[in-house]
Amino acid sequence: MNGAESLMHTARAARIDVCFANPGTTEMSLVTALDSVAGIRPVLGLFEGVCTGAADGFGRMAGRPAMTLLHLGPGLANGLANLHNARRARTPVVNVVGDHSTRHLEFDSLLKSDIEALAAPVSSWVRTSTDANSVAADFAQAVRAATTPPGGVATLIIPADLQSAPVVGPAPLSKPAAAPAPESSRVAAAVESVRRGQSSALLVGGPACHRGALESLARIAAATNCRLFVETFPARMDRGAGTPQVERFPYFPEQSAGLLDGVERVVLVGAPDPVAMFGWPGAPNRMLPEHVEVVSLAGPEEDGGAALAAVADELSAPAGSGSFATFNPPPRPSGALDANTLAVAVAATLPEQAIVVDEGATSSVLLYPALACAAPHTWLTLTGGAIGQGLPCATGAAIACPDRSVIAFQADGSGLYTLQALWTQAREALDVTTIICANRSYRILQIELMRAGVGEPGPAARALTNLGEPALDWVKLATGMGVPAVRAGDAEAMVRELERALAEPGPHLIEAVL
Amino acid sequence: MNGAESLMHTARAARIDVCFANPGTTEMSLVTALDSVAGIRPVLGLFEGVCTGAADGFGRMAGRPAMTLLHLGPGLANGLANLHNARRARTPVVNVVGDHSTRHLEFDSLLKSDIEALAAPVSSWVRTSTDANSVAADFAQAVRAATTPPGGVATLIIPADLQSAPVVGPAPLSKPAAAPAPESSRVAAAVESVRRGQSSALLVGGPACHRGALESLARIAAATNCRLFVETFPARMDRGAGTPQVERFPYFPEQSAGLLDGVERVVLVGAPDPVAMFGWPGAPNRMLPEHVEVVSLAGPEEDGGAALAAVADELSAPAGSGSFATFNPPPRPSGALDANTLAVAVAATLPEQAIVVDEGATSSVLLYPALACAAPHTWLTLTGGAIGQGLPCATGAAIACPDRSVIAFQADGSGLYTLQALWTQAREALDVTTIICANRSYRILQIELMRAGVGEPGPAARALTNLGEPALDWVKLATGMGVPAVRAGDAEAMVRELERALAEPGPHLIEAVL
Repeated sequence: MNGAESLMHTARAARIDVCFANPGTTEMSLVTALDSVAGIRPVLGLFEGVCTGAADGFGRMAGRPAMTLLHLGPGLANGLANLHNARRARTPVVNVVGDHSTRHLEFDSLLKSDIEALAAPVSSWVRTSTDANSVAADFAQAVRAATTPPGGVATLIIPADLQSAPVVGPAPLSKPAAAPAPESSRVAAAVESVRRGQSSALLVGGPACHRGALESLARIAAATNCRLFVETFPARMDRGAGTPQVERFPYFPEQSAGLLDGVERVVLVGAPDPVAMFGWPGAPNRMLPEHVEVVSLAGPEEDGGAALAAVADELSAPAGSGSFATFNPPPRPSGALDANTLAVAVAATLPEQAIVVDEGATSSVLLYPALACAAPHTWLTLTGGAIGQGLPCATGAAIACPDRSVIAFQADGSGLYTLQALWTQAREALDVTTIICANRSYRILQIELMRAGVGEPGPAARALTNLGEPALDWVKLATGMGVPAVRAGDAEAMVRELERALAEPGPHLIEAVL
Repeated sequence: MNGAESLMHTARAARIDVCFANPGTTEMSLVTALDSVAGIRPVLGLFEGVCTGAADGFGRMAGRPAMTLLHLGPGLANGLANLHNARRARTPVVNVVGDHSTRHLEFDSLLKSDIEALAAPVSSWVRTSTDANSVAADFAQAVRAATTPPGGVATLIIPADLQSAPVVGPAPLSKPAAAPAPESSRVAAAVESVRRGQSSALLVGGPACHRGALESLARIAAATNCRLFVETFPARMDRGAGTPQVERFPYFPEQSAGLLDGVERVVLVGAPDPVAMFGWPGAPNRMLPEHVEVVSLAGPEEDGGAALAAVADELSAPAGSGSFATFNPPPRPSGALDANTLAVAVAATLPEQAIVVDEGATSSVLLYPALACAAPHTWLTLTGGAIGQGLPCATGAAIACPDRSVIAFQADGSGLYTLQALWTQAREALDVTTIICANRSYRILQIELMRAGVGEPGPAARALTNLGEPALDWVKLATGMGVPAVRAGDAEAMVRELERALAEPGPHLIEAVL
């Protein structure tokens, strides 16, 4: 057994069964170990951002890590943006990067770079193996680091000679500590707060957006009439019929003031004190007004679900009580295709237990409300703001949940960042339906120019925010990657093509011309 | 005038006239400054790796920096791989990255990350502006750092509020020091070495591969009969008719032994002591055998051209003496299309003063010898081994040299990394002809598996090195990006389509099915 095989045996023991990979020369022993150790599915991404984004989507849905396999510093660099998103989502990811042989690292070869320095900003744990016999133990430590609540990216760098050297065997795993339940004093403080009814709000994030936690949320709201909010970009939220209505925290600071009218205290559960996406001139940096009292029930590293259940129990809220959305999808839309009819088309046709990966940017503002009474589904968002996450994340979610339909609701500008994910969807025959919201611009930047008072952008500002000259042809791009694709120019066509794509197995893409 | 405008005025004074950009919210003042300060052409890339690779290609051909404009840490991260290549090419690049407003940086907003840490591994100079009135001076320092020999990537990070704040004005520029000429003792040592004839070799790299330096090289070889080599991956080399024949240093260490038979000393001019690409088991790390004496005439930061001229003068080699390739292109090939007939097709049809960007990987092994007697041209290579450089580099080279044809000789697997560059070529109507060497595999990795003794790769190793299931359709991918494209299945078709593409203005792509 060599170092690479000891790693794969350790991975199997840790229930890691998927490896999102784009390896190179320095990872060849790890590649051949995927053949000599059974049980880990290699999934090739044609760009590392696909691999890391897929590992994020997989981890969010499976609740356990996938591993990646990346080539040296530049390969890792190509995957960093989606690791940034995974870090913000607190997704468990075991990120494996090969390095030159230890003997070769003394020399300044062309591909040499400071891999640890590149990994640190996105990783909660970084290590470079220094001995072949420690590779398996290092991997076990990486698994532990990735899965210790709240979860994170653990990066293990392995020189090539340590992968191929003989070793004694795999390493034992140490179980990560479970997320601690919050202290009773914080439960009591939260109970005290929510008892004030409409002047109080619960703001949930992280695992407090999962189904069980949402049921406790509904019990609390029924018992107290407090208001319910979710962080703007949750990693994973269960939604649709059977879930309580929860308002989404807005993107722009000026929108939060009106939304929070009358709210005097906010109880945080698995969500940080919300900070504005950007520091706009004249706008507050924190999204909560200064006068609002912030009560922390559970931090992201704590068991928010248990905390919410404790609050509901303390309030003697009956199990199963609360108000839940009934299944009441909107009628199929007709007429012009715009952000509204597109969102309605998705809500009207959404299959039960679908996974909706939402990187729609400005085109998806209306998607959240439209899906409130759609079929029960899970909603994944762009947690770190690093665009190019949607198509890879959908790829990983589909591998984690082969029995569920995945919808990638995708802005065109962002989708262009990692369109190579479509090829992986084709190769792996994944049931992903991608909807490209083709407004042919970086619309959010055009909005930012307006907000900054640039009424009539000059030619440079127009050139840098417009994707229409020439227009991207997503039907050709997708079919070039092996994914069947069509274009929809009105709402009827959108509904028809969505229903067709959802009925057929395998990946599809619909370019929604907005 | 605000901070952003003071930067653009300073850039103009430094003769920076191109900005390869993919900006976001934190760079909007810099975008609008491109409109209020005339003379800097904004070029949009739909992925940051396109912007940084284009800046590399521009800098290599123009001999002066372009600026980039990137969005925060994730935007920079997406551009790191091609900045790694630029670092290895020693290309002057002024890399500008926006950051959150200083007031917002106290908060852990979703897009916050350690931008300086990400920039450091690829940059010779990194600074974050801390005052609006210093933005222009910081930019002037960045220009100086990027252009100080041997050239490098200078990264300036500018918080958004410093871009929009009023300032007193632009900053003066300080001229970078010229590359020093090597001391006379080193010239004398080099003369002493090359006088030994065939037992000595000159190994050139960096600017010592440019036309003027190559003329000195030819004089020296004519006077001494010493051997001539070029580093394996030069940033920019003038080649074809009118240039001396220079052997290319090989990729695999075992190839260098035979090549250097009889050579007892090697004089380095602008090239480092060559190190193997990887530390293969049992192979040497350095490419030069231990017994070979290494003589350093000029380091990359010195004036290798002046050093070669001094050696030639010292030898009393007459100006214009030496042996130069005559224009003698091969006949147009016919029959099956393979790596050989493809290289011959390029050599047979190459326009005068073309720029050949070579990221052909295993498919371009025969391109270097094939082009020896083709029309005079300039050859750019993958300097840092970070794949995905070819299409962006060709884009930047075409912007630097609008009167020259650019040929991107591109491996399919590598090309997929940054195919978004095709869209920029279409938008800017650049005269780039891309040849995709479609072997539908990561062939180099299949070779590495063979070298490692894996005679019959298992299913995982096959899956991770094969791009053929499904086959990528480059004709659809290119036309989806707005670039006219065709497929060539034999040598006659290849020649025909090359001639057609080269005769028409604007970008074209030919998928060469190998």
